[in-house]
Amino acid sequence: MTYDLYYWPGLPGRGEYVRLVLEAAGAEYRDMARLDRSQGGGVEAMFAFIRGAKGPRRPLAPPFLVDGDIILSQTAVIVAFLGERHGLAPDLEADRMFARSIAATTADFVGEAHDTHHPLGVALYYEDQKAEAARRAEAFRNERMAKFLGWYEALIGDNPAGSSYLAGDALSYADLGLFQTVEGLRYAFPRRMKTLSPDYPLVMALCDRVAAGPRISAYLGSDRRTPFNEDGIFRHYPELDGD
Amino acid sequence: MTYDLYYWPGLPGRGEYVRLVLEAAGAEYRDMARLDRSQGGGVEAMFAFIRGAKGPRRPLAPPFLVDGDIILSQTAVIVAFLGERHGLAPDLEADRMFARSIAATTADFVGEAHDTHHPLGVALYYEDQKAEAARRAEAFRNERMAKFLGWYEALIGDNPAGSSYLAGDALSYADLGLFQTVEGLRYAFPRRMKTLSPDYPLVMALCDRVAAGPRISAYLGSDRRTPFNEDGIFRHYPELDGD
Repeated sequence: MTYDLYYWPGLPGRGEYVRLVLEAAGAEYRDMARLDRSQGGGVEAMFAFIRGAKGPRRPLAPPFLVDGDIILSQTAVIVAFLGERHGLAPDLEADRMFARSIAATTADFVGEAHDTHHPLGVALYYEDQKAEAARRAEAFRNERMAKFLGWYEALIGDNPAGSSYLAGDALSYADLGLFQTVEGLRYAFPRRMKTLSPDYPLVMALCDRVAAGPRISAYLGSDRRTPFNEDGIFRHYPELDGD
Repeated sequence: MTYDLYYWPGLPGRGEYVRLVLEAAGAEYRDMARLDRSQGGGVEAMFAFIRGAKGPRRPLAPPFLVDGDIILSQTAVIVAFLGERHGLAPDLEADRMFARSIAATTADFVGEAHDTHHPLGVALYYEDQKAEAARRAEAFRNERMAKFLGWYEALIGDNPAGSSYLAGDALSYADLGLFQTVEGLRYAFPRRMKTLSPDYPLVMALCDRVAAGPRISAYLGSDRRTPFNEDGIFRHYPELDGD
């Protein structure tokens, strides 16, 4: 079985959350928008799904994953589906369901990180909303980052399986999402992450373990891993960072 | 089995999306934050879960649903769980998975509706971000509303089951979410919805059918249904509306 992943080429964005689960699972997949048109890929192939030319179940936006008749959109939905199918989700039902809640909460956190540079919406460029972005980013740095990071820290510390993961007793898609989010925050807000990180030792240790796993460490060193940049969700605008 | 739902009392908000599925399913539930402290309810009982005093699996925020050992947060996760358990989800796997994507996309739409009055974040009052809200609301009215509503319209029109629902051949939690969102938009943006509605006849007809269902119509006429107000997600600020 080969999955087809569709996401904007050239930026990690939300697609990277899906890629990490596929890579950690050792699943076969094609990163369609990065393929040539001659292989059925390219951005136009992605838009064909969105405008309904490839079937009735059209996504509103990327990322989306195609597996035969199944088409899934929304990062939190896709990663839960893949994680539960490929042994990257907790076995116990209570943990399994809670992992879904964690991934959806991470999607909210990622959305808030995005909104620091686009508080007035995606119809305007960052350059047209810089003053508003500065205000939103300040609130994000001073309140939201600690709220979310503190929540993950508490989940790891109180994990009823006694493990050092977010849910259950082994690595899950929830942990992979936290890793990518912390990486993004380190890229976008390096000064703030430097002051905040010591308060969340369990989060930071978990992220280190995720990065050191054999499949993920190989992936991170490969050319399939896209660096963060200023087209993505996590953007390094120094004027939005602060201690 | 009785579910315990926790959500802010006094506003419909995201909790209402969960209530509608519980009501359409005919499921027993307690609306905990509306109950008296003597019954184990109240807002303090809700905060006890959030701060981890009721168990290790703590939600970041309401709404959340407790069912024995299972605790679920995030609206899109909760409604999918309930819908799939109570016959309010498609049977065919492709539709079942796609319904999850629809509910998560609706959660994004609801988040954008919220951000029209809080573009700089929840740390500031609306009164402290009115100018920014006006700009964000304009983009929401002029671009985002049509984008989302047009997507739902296309899903109903192209439904592979040939039904007039969003996914599968019967009412699902995805339809209930669309209904509540359209109700909220009608409350918050009555002028804009008046000009937009004629373009989305399938959406409007589906919402009418949802409201006319026996359980939902009884619920809408009951005192369990909370009216929209300016403490919630969908707020009627006339200065944010327009044709």
